[in-house]
Amino acid sequence: MRRIRYSVAMSLDGYIAGPKGESDWIIVDPDIDFSALYKEFDTVLMGRKTYEAARQMGGGGGMPGFQVYVFSRTLSQADCPGVTVSATPKETLAPLKETPGKDIWLFGGGSLFRSLLELGLVDTVEVALIPVLLGGGLSLLHPPAQLAGLRLTKHRVYEKTGTIALEYAVVPPAAGARSTKRRRR
Amino acid sequence: MRRIRYSVAMSLDGYIAGPKGESDWIIVDPDIDFSALYKEFDTVLMGRKTYEAARQMGGGGGMPGFQVYVFSRTLSQADCPGVTVSATPKETLAPLKETPGKDIWLFGGGSLFRSLLELGLVDTVEVALIPVLLGGGLSLLHPPAQLAGLRLTKHRVYEKTGTIALEYAVVPPAAGARSTKRRRR
Repeated sequence: MRRIRYSVAMSLDGYIAGPKGESDWIIVDPDIDFSALYKEFDTVLMGRKTYEAARQMGGGGGMPGFQVYVFSRTLSQADCPGVTVSATPKETLAPLKETPGKDIWLFGGGSLFRSLLELGLVDTVEVALIPVLLGGGLSLLHPPAQLAGLRLTKHRVYEKTGTIALEYAVVPPAAGARSTKRRRR
Repeated sequence: MRRIRYSVAMSLDGYIAGPKGESDWIIVDPDIDFSALYKEFDTVLMGRKTYEAARQMGGGGGMPGFQVYVFSRTLSQADCPGVTVSATPKETLAPLKETPGKDIWLFGGGSLFRSLLELGLVDTVEVALIPVLLGGGLSLLHPPAQLAGLRLTKHRVYEKTGTIALEYAVVPPAAGARSTKRRRR
């Protein structure tokens, strides 16, 4: 089955973007093989805000070579050429995971991650931990969210910049735990 | 010179405690040698909230064997036996770093860290990264705060739990950069 993988760069204090979506704080290590990473995916998932930010940067918000799904309750398909708009992540993604293909890249942001995590649809969290304290911004996981256990599956230190690539598997809640709706508000 | 080291456990999403100060999510790896860590320090720094939480847990908020400083503009020394209350971190800590002794443990929380970081008083950030998404709580660095560069100096993976111990040196802002007061609000 295809996996949904949340792969992002993050500051040590847990932000994936600055308060206005800035990404200029991300130090790109020359030894990270992005083309190898890209080859593992053929589909990209975005929340509305991430999509709108991508659109502003040009290219229409699509990503060449990837099928892009944008999850939003307000965007209309007619206004978003080149991508598939969905308001129902579970109904869209559960069957998509069953179809043949490469892995699915949850590109951002933290609100879509929260939704998909609560639906039990996210398989891995893969963070490139950048050696910086950002001091504020958009959170890896938009709070408040349910507690979720993780299992470290891989790590690699990129010595030139001190970036650490971390891969975790999302640990499914124990049977029955989901129904207790334990939340840490 | 004695170093001020911010040493804490943190969830992957950047929290050092739950919304109500909870620490029950912290998985303690049996291979972490806490007694060796404790031996490196003789002085502990706390913000008011951390101190009040420690007091509620009993023991009067002090820590046996450590000289404890609590930074607060509202607490009075008379109400806080066994610890030293200060409203002026710079005046208290700049000379303290010059006196002979072991390292100084910035115990928490994120607001005191922000204050001391802005004053240029913090030497290292040492995080035990716990494999969990907490979904909300008290931030490693209380936002909004200035961006601060870090340099990775050490890392160790604790295989039994997937905890990763990370040590960073705080990179002092380049000469002149401080005066521009660049903030990411």
